[in-house]
Amino acid sequence: MVHILSGYQTRFGEIWNSSLKNLIQESGFGAIKNSGIDKKDIDNVFIGNMAGGKYTGQEHLGALTTTSLGLSVPSVHCEAACASGAVAFQQAYYKIKSGESRVALVVGAEKMTDVIGDEAVSILMGAGDSETESFIGLPFSGLYALMAKIHMNKFGTTSEQLANVSVINHKHGTNNKLAQFNTEITIRNVLESTMIADPLHLLDCSPLTDGAAAVILTSDDIAKEYDNPIKVKACACFTDTLALYKRESLFKLKSAIKAGENVFKDSGLKTRDIDVLEVHDCFSINEILCLEALGFCKEGRGGRFVEDDEISLDGSIPTNTTGGLKSCGHPVGATGVRQILDVVNQIQGKSINQVKAKNGLCLNIGGSGATAVAHIFGVE
Amino acid sequence: MVHILSGYQTRFGEIWNSSLKNLIQESGFGAIKNSGIDKKDIDNVFIGNMAGGKYTGQEHLGALTTTSLGLSVPSVHCEAACASGAVAFQQAYYKIKSGESRVALVVGAEKMTDVIGDEAVSILMGAGDSETESFIGLPFSGLYALMAKIHMNKFGTTSEQLANVSVINHKHGTNNKLAQFNTEITIRNVLESTMIADPLHLLDCSPLTDGAAAVILTSDDIAKEYDNPIKVKACACFTDTLALYKRESLFKLKSAIKAGENVFKDSGLKTRDIDVLEVHDCFSINEILCLEALGFCKEGRGGRFVEDDEISLDGSIPTNTTGGLKSCGHPVGATGVRQILDVVNQIQGKSINQVKAKNGLCLNIGGSGATAVAHIFGVE
Repeated sequence: MVHILSGYQTRFGEIWNSSLKNLIQESGFGAIKNSGIDKKDIDNVFIGNMAGGKYTGQEHLGALTTTSLGLSVPSVHCEAACASGAVAFQQAYYKIKSGESRVALVVGAEKMTDVIGDEAVSILMGAGDSETESFIGLPFSGLYALMAKIHMNKFGTTSEQLANVSVINHKHGTNNKLAQFNTEITIRNVLESTMIADPLHLLDCSPLTDGAAAVILTSDDIAKEYDNPIKVKACACFTDTLALYKRESLFKLKSAIKAGENVFKDSGLKTRDIDVLEVHDCFSINEILCLEALGFCKEGRGGRFVEDDEISLDGSIPTNTTGGLKSCGHPVGATGVRQILDVVNQIQGKSINQVKAKNGLCLNIGGSGATAVAHIFGVE
Repeated sequence: MVHILSGYQTRFGEIWNSSLKNLIQESGFGAIKNSGIDKKDIDNVFIGNMAGGKYTGQEHLGALTTTSLGLSVPSVHCEAACASGAVAFQQAYYKIKSGESRVALVVGAEKMTDVIGDEAVSILMGAGDSETESFIGLPFSGLYALMAKIHMNKFGTTSEQLANVSVINHKHGTNNKLAQFNTEITIRNVLESTMIADPLHLLDCSPLTDGAAAVILTSDDIAKEYDNPIKVKACACFTDTLALYKRESLFKLKSAIKAGENVFKDSGLKTRDIDVLEVHDCFSINEILCLEALGFCKEGRGGRFVEDDEISLDGSIPTNTTGGLKSCGHPVGATGVRQILDVVNQIQGKSINQVKAKNGLCLNIGGSGATAVAHIFGVE
């Protein structure tokens, strides 16, 4: 079994006075301190980052991370677009499970605001299929807008239901000191915000963000020496076609459906056993697609599920309880690790907007669903 | 135990009619065919690539690789500069060792010639420390030139000895149909070629290259159904400071020394047990530093060791028997996998320039030594 001791998140936002390296350092040292681990016991380092080379001119991020923390242990940079953080976490998990590591540090980090907005979006398009999407100028807002349009036409999902996703995420983020935005918004605010790609308004979209998050993973023998370690009960990763147009269904997240089925099967748990959920709301429609993919509601019913307040703190499945990508911000390489840390904090009983949680699930999506990474965490 | 069945290498060179995706496809399908594995048995895919985002506009390379091969299994892109291929291989190794994979495909690929030469070098500088190296315009030729100067001043290593490294690598590559260069060169050719960064001439430097290589790894139960699987006897990865100036010694590859010590310890083998060697000759001086770091000769004696023909096919340790980075070319993300495949081919008795080999060692270096990844492979 592999366990998470604790972690650390930097403030998410436009952090102009911190470089990528500074963010990595702050989160790495913070996770070491919060977990109580001795730095010299860390025997492996993993970093999730999507595009440090393009955003900051720095590749070779494994070595950057170890050198920043004064370590000389094995390290590797893992990338899977917006799922980079979760795939880095998984490599650490497998290395501990293989017996070749006892204490691993996983950092997720991205520094996106050192380039101008247009360039930042153009860099993100590297997560799509270069031949059929990025090079023709189709960004992710456009891809998710296509998915949203189809969902609306097929199931009657409304713009108000989409807006509701953002409203709830912003509500959950109001008291999150580490979030990029702390303002409550209304459905009217969303619907009156600039149209980015019909039907997605500005406030249906997560922002460009700087930030980092880190967690410490350990093997059984180390975990038992610490208070309140959280078990990694199951993990899965699946891929779908990189290009959206090649899929049988443009709105089904096949990779997420498979990843969800796998983590439920491997953990022996059902959706009703999950007390807290983190899903990938890069655009409001994606939170709806994730809820459907994981089976928390039926296909096509995600809009209504959100409208019925099922994902609020007192709903049937409290989701994105710290604000999600929309309110926390979305430093792409950091998000997967931030999601994991927030679920761990909930299970350890030290979260903001605390809910009663024994088991939690995280779903981190790369691109328009070409990569999906799911984890279930718990205490028993 | 983890095993390698077989693999495939594309031609290395300026492959103008193949995209990064084409190279990945050719190597992936080639490895599947050569190993005799059924494609549907592949349960994990790993890809090593340094800078696809900058060279080709394509990130999210794990999903690109699975989608290119018609797979939907877990996949992750691993990066560690010029050691990206070997770190990708290691993640596959640990996942199989953890019991979570039985058949993994590892691809290393880089497409470097779609940008102009200056830009290609500038992209490579992302492997150095952005704050103290890349942003001041210090490229890797300059960093390795510093290391060479110190080695020459301290140990009396000569330009002729450096040149000898390239001469031998080119000699080994003359009959390698997959190599970028098949021409024999002389010491005089090297010394009369353009000075790039004193003391390194043009012919001390490996070229910019497009190419891909892939191997199939399996668990014990699968390997026994195939002829001649090669065991992964040991693997190690260590890191040093990203910035060269921060190191205690500017010529000692501390990361490689530690990685070497570890693979020898874990395999129970000594240098005398190694029959074939692949080391990282991105610049001629680096082959000398690698030979010293691994203990094949004493510190400071690498130049003489090469001069004495110890690394030739009939020397005490046949090294880079297919041409090394200098003659094969150096598609950075592919090199680590190409090295592994070439050692495997030697041990399986199907290499060009065949030597008698039961055990082989590969050392893949990232940056100026910030990452070192070593593996020992063998049959018994």
